[in-house]
Amino acid sequence: MNEKTISVSPRLRVGVVGAGYWGPNLARNFAASPDWDLAVICDLDADRAQRVADRVGGVPISQSLDEVLADPAIDAVAIATPARTHHPIVMAALAAGKHVTVEKPFADEQRRGAEMVDTARANGLVLMADHTYCYTPAVLKIRELIAAGDLGDILFVDSVRINLGLIQPDVDVFWDLAPHDLSIIDFVLPGGIDATSVAAHGADPLGTGKSCIGYLTMPLSGGAIAHIHVNWLSPTKIRQMVIGGTKRTLVWDDLNPQQRVSVYDRGVDLAGQSQATASDVHAARISYRLGDTWAPALAETEALSNMTAEFASAIREKRQARTDGASGLRVLSILEAAKGSLGAGGAPYPVEILERVEQS
Amino acid sequence: MNEKTISVSPRLRVGVVGAGYWGPNLARNFAASPDWDLAVICDLDADRAQRVADRVGGVPISQSLDEVLADPAIDAVAIATPARTHHPIVMAALAAGKHVTVEKPFADEQRRGAEMVDTARANGLVLMADHTYCYTPAVLKIRELIAAGDLGDILFVDSVRINLGLIQPDVDVFWDLAPHDLSIIDFVLPGGIDATSVAAHGADPLGTGKSCIGYLTMPLSGGAIAHIHVNWLSPTKIRQMVIGGTKRTLVWDDLNPQQRVSVYDRGVDLAGQSQATASDVHAARISYRLGDTWAPALAETEALSNMTAEFASAIREKRQARTDGASGLRVLSILEAAKGSLGAGGAPYPVEILERVEQS
Amino acid sequence: MNEKTISVSPRLRVGVVGAGYWGPNLARNFAASPDWDLAVICDLDADRAQRVADRVGGVPISQSLDEVLADPAIDAVAIATPARTHHPIVMAALAAGKHVTVEKPFADEQRRGAEMVDTARANGLVLMADHTYCYTPAVLKIRELIAAGDLGDILFVDSVRINLGLIQPDVDVFWDLAPHDLSIIDFVLPGGIDATSVAAHGADPLGTGKSCIGYLTMPLSGGAIAHIHVNWLSPTKIRQMVIGGTKRTLVWDDLNPQQRVSVYDRGVDLAGQSQATASDVHAARISYRLGDTWAPALAETEALSNMTAEFASAIREKRQARTDGASGLRVLSILEAAKGSLGAGGAPYPVEILERVEQS
Amino acid sequence: MNEKTISVSPRLRVGVVGAGYWGPNLARNFAASPDWDLAVICDLDADRAQRVADRVGGVPISQSLDEVLADPAIDAVAIATPARTHHPIVMAALAAGKHVTVEKPFADEQRRGAEMVDTARANGLVLMADHTYCYTPAVLKIRELIAAGDLGDILFVDSVRINLGLIQPDVDVFWDLAPHDLSIIDFVLPGGIDATSVAAHGADPLGTGKSCIGYLTMPLSGGAIAHIHVNWLSPTKIRQMVIGGTKRTLVWDDLNPQQRVSVYDRGVDLAGQSQATASDVHAARISYRLGDTWAPALAETEALSNMTAEFASAIREKRQARTDGASGLRVLSILEAAKGSLGAGGAPYPVEILERVEQS
Repeated sequence: MNEKTISVSPRLRVGVVGAGYWGPNLARNFAASPDWDLAVICDLDADRAQRVADRVGGVPISQSLDEVLADPAIDAVAIATPARTHHPIVMAALAAGKHVTVEKPFADEQRRGAEMVDTARANGLVLMADHTYCYTPAVLKIRELIAAGDLGDILFVDSVRINLGLIQPDVDVFWDLAPHDLSIIDFVLPGGIDATSVAAHGADPLGTGKSCIGYLTMPLSGGAIAHIHVNWLSPTKIRQMVIGGTKRTLVWDDLNPQQRVSVYDRGVDLAGQSQATASDVHAARISYRLGDTWAPALAETEALSNMTAEFASAIREKRQARTDGASGLRVLSILEAAKGSLGAGGAPYPVEILERVEQS
Repeated sequence: MNEKTISVSPRLRVGVVGAGYWGPNLARNFAASPDWDLAVICDLDADRAQRVADRVGGVPISQSLDEVLADPAIDAVAIATPARTHHPIVMAALAAGKHVTVEKPFADEQRRGAEMVDTARANGLVLMADHTYCYTPAVLKIRELIAAGDLGDILFVDSVRINLGLIQPDVDVFWDLAPHDLSIIDFVLPGGIDATSVAAHGADPLGTGKSCIGYLTMPLSGGAIAHIHVNWLSPTKIRQMVIGGTKRTLVWDDLNPQQRVSVYDRGVDLAGQSQATASDVHAARISYRLGDTWAPALAETEALSNMTAEFASAIREKRQARTDGASGLRVLSILEAAKGSLGAGGAPYPVEILERVEQS
Repeated sequence: MNEKTISVSPRLRVGVVGAGYWGPNLARNFAASPDWDLAVICDLDADRAQRVADRVGGVPISQSLDEVLADPAIDAVAIATPARTHHPIVMAALAAGKHVTVEKPFADEQRRGAEMVDTARANGLVLMADHTYCYTPAVLKIRELIAAGDLGDILFVDSVRINLGLIQPDVDVFWDLAPHDLSIIDFVLPGGIDATSVAAHGADPLGTGKSCIGYLTMPLSGGAIAHIHVNWLSPTKIRQMVIGGTKRTLVWDDLNPQQRVSVYDRGVDLAGQSQATASDVHAARISYRLGDTWAPALAETEALSNMTAEFASAIREKRQARTDGASGLRVLSILEAAKGSLGAGGAPYPVEILERVEQS
Repeated sequence: MNEKTISVSPRLRVGVVGAGYWGPNLARNFAASPDWDLAVICDLDADRAQRVADRVGGVPISQSLDEVLADPAIDAVAIATPARTHHPIVMAALAAGKHVTVEKPFADEQRRGAEMVDTARANGLVLMADHTYCYTPAVLKIRELIAAGDLGDILFVDSVRINLGLIQPDVDVFWDLAPHDLSIIDFVLPGGIDATSVAAHGADPLGTGKSCIGYLTMPLSGGAIAHIHVNWLSPTKIRQMVIGGTKRTLVWDDLNPQQRVSVYDRGVDLAGQSQATASDVHAARISYRLGDTWAPALAETEALSNMTAEFASAIREKRQARTDGASGLRVLSILEAAKGSLGAGGAPYPVEILERVEQS
């Protein structure tokens, strides 16, 4: 498992920046990867960095980002610091010629994220959004099924992510949790998430100063709809996404390890409609399919292990990562429109993409 | 079970009007009730009426509503006909001096429903909304727990009612399914549902001419929020309501017969806030309770049996039923605001109560 | 649904004998069947009979079995009386030339059951064991899958049927509940249940005078094993059967209406064994398949409706019913061996089949 | 969490012997414990030892058990080597004056285990059975509830532990899995497991040369019964224990992290029995309680963390550990009786306790 004999290319060298909540997971996965040498753990807090380093077999630590970026032996950095620091750290890393993967949210503002994307492109560097959930076996399978046309055209996406959660000091529940749902939806829909407006409804019934309960509604192309429910105040934990299509419907229940993904060959068929005039639409023949359910076997690889492999492949193949900067920007564009909708009392608010970077 | 020896009052006599989907259930429960004699099954379609009559032991049938209403031996009628016919039938029944219980939705328009309520009051008759779900043991228990303060102040209500459903010829998914959720929320919240605006988002991705997927969001008093998700296109069936309170949170999972109602003594405590100024609010001390879960035992009575008993009691005690006309109107007021919001592209729309009848 | 237009043969006429717990279900299904006319409800208690008759639209009642059996217009009787009365009633019915279906357990003793089977055969009449569970869509599908070889050779059957149950006055938990499991196993295994010995372990920790908790273990041919757990004292309800095969394994969870039957393409493969000598067996190459899970769509027909159809077909086609008297005897043979094992302190006890009637 | 500031006593020093499957978990927990200094990882395979050492921050390694035992600075050893090596390693460690905790099964033979217990007692050393499951928050809570009388007298214990499992080269499914169930039952029952006989039924339908499916049945004192189902061939994973008592019944579902332990205030009451003569017993008044369900909040500590704390406390307080050598012997006595029963074709086999060591 831990044997590093598979890779033929020379290993890439990575530094992990940020040794807080997420950094240890990055460190562990880079350390175990056949593609990577974990070169350094960087954090202003040396004790924190050391604890992470100890757990992966005594990697060097550094308290200086400049030092890490100045090291010519380092190819890439993985950034797991607070959102507001993403822009300066990423810009410095890109300036130093390093490839970058950065934790969600990609940036604290789409405008600053777009600058990061432009710079990476100008410098010919990989800038990856570490949308970790996209690399779970479940989401990779969902993307594959939709791409293969197994669901048909997508009719709706309904995502629920609720649990008793820490009330974050700096962000509301939308910015804390919805990036997961948005990045997943963006990843599995063939053209990415293409909402042109967002309606956001939030509630702060405890008076914390920020939304603790949130609902996002987005019309998608072709009359489809996406909806996300995020909630910090629910004592019952639900992580479920239903993706309805014209041919089949898929349910992803992330808390059911024995059957995370189910594909239902059931649904509503609307036949004879192509010939129907507008006034005939009520007479359209509707029928129901009640077919089998099928649960694909999923690999048991860890998402971050897949992410580190993708990061290495993108660098070696000189291509965009599957979750590239553009996907990071699309997620930010929805979050910013959600903020606009909240400010407008819940009225739908247009989604503005500052820089529509082409997806690879 | 079926023995009719409990009741001491003389039995009331009821006619069931409408022998379609719901009428047989009404017939069966009135027939089995110690409070009622089932006098007649009335339907324009004699065969349909006869089949219902046969299953309850040979009750008389009638094809004429006038005949039924003219019978002085009949005290009350239970109406299970299409929504657009509720107003004329109810008005005729009230004019004939009959007490009335009427299936959801109470009427097809709030204005016409208000006329029914006014007439019943003027005539001193009971006019009950047959909000059947409110009489399930689960909902009765939820109402009781909230009234006793077990949940504290209500912070949020999130209701999901999704399943593969028949696309109705005349109503959209909001009018078909949301009356259940709205009537339940209205029933369990101490002051009834008090939303002043509603945002509705619908989708019709199959092009049926009406919303098949719907989301309703309503701010409640005190910063709380209610949200309802109804969906005809989901192959996976969910009927779940989460009610969060300052003290405890309740989850009602109607498809888990072994534990329908769970009360979680978990949540977020926000302490020291009363002293805090607005700018201090981020520093408010937040703590988490991780206490026990408790699932109250529920009676195993059928909801309609409880409904028929309540209808009889209201008549005998000359009082409003627990689900009275006013509750029917409140549900209609939300549905009409939802229609307004849909027409306004999802912007929040004010709730207008034409006649705010006092709840008993 | 209720329309009786499908059948072309003239309808058969049936009397239901016994109007207690099970009789009303029989009456309802025969009344709704296109194959049958429900001719009479027979019970010593006229009130009880009348209540059943009323619910199916006013069928005649009788307090006299002799009267029913003497009626030449009656083709068949369905018997739902206490087990100890099965033998005399069935023998009388067969003597009167009636076809018979009889509730489980088939008889109170295998010896008496065998006499019933012999008499039916001698008289050219259908004698059916009403093993109702065998006619559920789930069990019919399981039988079909195993017959088609989808599971490969059967390795084990593990059945759990536990719930808070009424402590029966006359039978222990083995005779009350295990007939369900045994009849199902007999029905789905290609050659019927072929155990040659049974070990039974019971417990009566409340001192009721009979086992309230029971375990049955039976070696099956080919090194396979069947095990049944029945329990009246469990507050949690489980009805689950796992059937492991060399190719796939099937789980039937009867309390999960959304996915009752799941087929797992997972398991252990033992390769290269055929060439192996006894001493090599530890070196046999073992591998694991981790394939997909598949849940077949199931019809939504009621089991008793399928049973009444099968009863009619067997009569018309002059053949044994799928759950014939022989299957009833096999179930009794296991129950009697279980009694022997209990008497022997749990030691395995041989299964004796008094009359091995050939299965059609 | 990782801060080692709580402990006031000087830390004890431990060596972990065996760096295979379980050793890394021991190493991680001893390293994180405020009670312990992890002094050395010992394994014949230096690479394996080094990998474990690396993951806990660079602890020394050794390939020589003698060297480890000769080190006077080491107070204790934790042994995670194959079962057949437990006896020689434990005996050597005790001879060297080290306290010992040893992985399950305690030894490969009760006789050898008893020698270990005698030696530890003679030398005044702690010899602990690392029955890890007993230190999960769930099992600790179950023990506490039973000890407090919340369940009343125990009527039955039914344990299921089935999953697709590796077919072990040296042990059958009884010796591989049942030690978990047996050690748990021994831990939670007030007097420990007191079965006087065991019936074991195994099956090896794949011809692997050992039982892959196993059932154990044990009468307990007072008419109660314990039953264990272990299975390597089940593609569906179940880890569930039901413990029925005269007052309440408890269900532990280890795969339901949101509600692992449920206490049902439901059951059967047998009243008036004390006055009843034997012949009256059928007339005993039986009633059913259908009360609430309650799920206690559980701590989220790791079992091994609790185990290391208990090991340290037992050493410091010079007392037996909660899972002492005697409990290890009781588990072995059942496993050996099970082997006897298997050899006797499933007939109940007496449990022989070679050395009934008093439980602390």
